[in-house]
Amino acid sequence: MTEHRLLPLVDAPAPERRDAARNREALLEAAQALIDHCGLDAVTMDAVAAAAGVGKGTVFRRFDSRAGLMGALLNHNETAWQASVMSGPPPLGPGAEPWERLLAFGRSRLETTLQHADLIRHAGQAGTRSFAAYSFAAMHVRYLLGQLGVTGDLPLLATALMAPLEAPILEQQVRIEGIDVERVFHGWADLAGRIVRR
Amino acid sequence: MTEHRLLPLVDAPAPERRDAARNREALLEAAQALIDHCGLDAVTMDAVAAAAGVGKGTVFRRFDSRAGLMGALLNHNETAWQASVMSGPPPLGPGAEPWERLLAFGRSRLETTLQHADLIRHAGQAGTRSFAAYSFAAMHVRYLLGQLGVTGDLPLLATALMAPLEAPILEQQVRIEGIDVERVFHGWADLAGRIVRR
Repeated sequence: MTEHRLLPLVDAPAPERRDAARNREALLEAAQALIDHCGLDAVTMDAVAAAAGVGKGTVFRRFDSRAGLMGALLNHNETAWQASVMSGPPPLGPGAEPWERLLAFGRSRLETTLQHADLIRHAGQAGTRSFAAYSFAAMHVRYLLGQLGVTGDLPLLATALMAPLEAPILEQQVRIEGIDVERVFHGWADLAGRIVRR
Repeated sequence: MTEHRLLPLVDAPAPERRDAARNREALLEAAQALIDHCGLDAVTMDAVAAAAGVGKGTVFRRFDSRAGLMGALLNHNETAWQASVMSGPPPLGPGAEPWERLLAFGRSRLETTLQHADLIRHAGQAGTRSFAAYSFAAMHVRYLLGQLGVTGDLPLLATALMAPLEAPILEQQVRIEGIDVERVFHGWADLAGRIVRR
């Protein structure tokens, strides 16, 4: 402890900053546990405060509003997903053939979007993920299309591949029309094959 | 007039019903004119009542809320679009080759969705059109894909073709990323060509 005070690491956050980060993490974990066990409606600022053992004011100071909390939670999940694309095990992560990675991308995006559909609907007014989240995924799909030798307007083809995986469309297919998730995935893989001209 | 009373046509609405329909039409036209000239924010229940020369209570009785009015206006536009697909001039309407009709569908959907994007955002919470509106368009695309000899899971391929034409995606491309509308259309036509395997 004395040593730590004598030789502060440049990149180490100040103790209060580290506490704040831990605090924030604990609140997000409490909110996620509430969603997993009781559904999204159970996530009130009061309930999250109680579950994390802090005052309601702390939750408001940290996230501003219920929508702010939902947005932070979504970002938290998205960051974990991005890490698994960038450095997780194949085939979602590096090390597999581009076509295998593209299929793994589609399946994983489909599953996580359905899993977080309620959260996405509450966090953004358009029912879609944030532009930053979209941009990362679009960049990854463009990269894979390039690796697969696809020619054409790659940014637009990437958007076309990602559009059917957006929450409002998946929810309509799976929750309203009652289409099996496996069939939705196979339809998406067929679309990908046509775009790649396999 | 006497004749009309003696021989009422079975399908003719009662005079009060006809007045109500005319009234409703006038209110929707007033609302559309307000949007065209002053933007969506100008559409308040007060402004629509004033523009149509009726009391505010009439607007509320007819549409319940501002969101209800937006929904009715969107339906009104959608119905006109559906009529032009079913019985309007080619290539959007019948009489052109299926591939020309598909391209005309894409262009017209792209243009009307961008034109009504604000309305769509205010009328539906998911930022997309109603399920009924979606179903009609999906049925039409499935029909054209069938005519073009496309095999596979046609309902899912139709969804894949329509997904990039949804309002949140088009708005992001055109309004946020600044992509030219013509480029978006050519990207969509390329997608359609790949799906049809032309």
